[in-house]
Amino acid sequence: MKSLDRKILSEAAYLGNGIIKVDRFLNHCVDTALMTEIGNEFSRQLSAQGITGINKIVTAETSGIAPALTTAQALGVPMVFARKKQPVTMKGNGYSSSVHSHTKEDRVTLHISKEFLSAEDRIVIIDDFLGVGETTTGLVELIKQSGARLCAIGFVLEKTYEQGRKALNHLGVPIISLARLDLQGEKIILVP
Amino acid sequence: MKSLDRKILSEAAYLGNGIIKVDRFLNHCVDTALMTEIGNEFSRQLSAQGITGINKIVTAETSGIAPALTTAQALGVPMVFARKKQPVTMKGNGYSSSVHSHTKEDRVTLHISKEFLSAEDRIVIIDDFLGVGETTTGLVELIKQSGARLCAIGFVLEKTYEQGRKALNHLGVPIISLARLDLQGEKIILVP
Repeated sequence: MKSLDRKILSEAAYLGNGIIKVDRFLNHCVDTALMTEIGNEFSRQLSAQGITGINKIVTAETSGIAPALTTAQALGVPMVFARKKQPVTMKGNGYSSSVHSHTKEDRVTLHISKEFLSAEDRIVIIDDFLGVGETTTGLVELIKQSGARLCAIGFVLEKTYEQGRKALNHLGVPIISLARLDLQGEKIILVP
Repeated sequence: MKSLDRKILSEAAYLGNGIIKVDRFLNHCVDTALMTEIGNEFSRQLSAQGITGINKIVTAETSGIAPALTTAQALGVPMVFARKKQPVTMKGNGYSSSVHSHTKEDRVTLHISKEFLSAEDRIVIIDDFLGVGETTTGLVELIKQSGARLCAIGFVLEKTYEQGRKALNHLGVPIISLARLDLQGEKIILVP
């Protein structure tokens, strides 16, 4: 996706410790036109891989919401975002899954109301980053609890150096990354 | 906005203590088509009120992100969401404002990187709910710190019984609510 590649090369910065700063366009200030294109591109790639009949996009708050929403717009389906704190509106009626958070050095529990995931659902998970894959593992666990079918997983950016793809491969579903990043010293590079 | 009114009357539920459950379409499972319409409607009403030259939409994580994004899409501008925890990518370079959270019964500090708010900006704040107006007050404070101009504030739903409009009136900017809700006993009603 050329517009995304250009944006990464011109605006992303490496901060050390594996952390890539993309807050100029992805996860703090959101480039709306690019985000719409990202949704369209996920939709195009899902279709190109023959993944059809998707009826829901699932993500986790916070940074996953924007790309999940534009992908759901492109597919014409609802988007569900997992909460990191169980809201009062969900009490006693949620799936939950606790995962270790690498970036926050703490455990995070993800919650989705039982109302919005069921065995009839065909799900694609969309998130901003694939790092070591912890958040995704938590979302997969929620989907498993519900009996829904996970059809694919999409990431805007994959940090290839954190090996998350290896951790998710056993799921046996297509993993789509719109851009794959690696580090050459302190420099971010795009890899095919 | 008829589609939103219908959705409220058929899907919103009153949980007591002033809490309205709209997680079926607004803040957990997001009705993508309705959210796109919401963005278009904010854009239409801003234009009808002669509010032009907006170059940024500002909101707070988490539930503000979806309506802020679709409004920014409709206006063709970027969207910035305030963080409730200062991320490592912002350290030492953020505006911040601490507000009391009515729903969380705690103080919440909002952060926006100085990179994304400046005196040249013409801002509209978009959020999901107007309750007592605490989050909005925090966002207004960040905008003031930056010298940016606040041009209007938009809410998908206004809980008229929490009087947030009164708390924001002194700002002297238009306050747009797409639906104004009141309670009749345990029943949610729409008010003009």
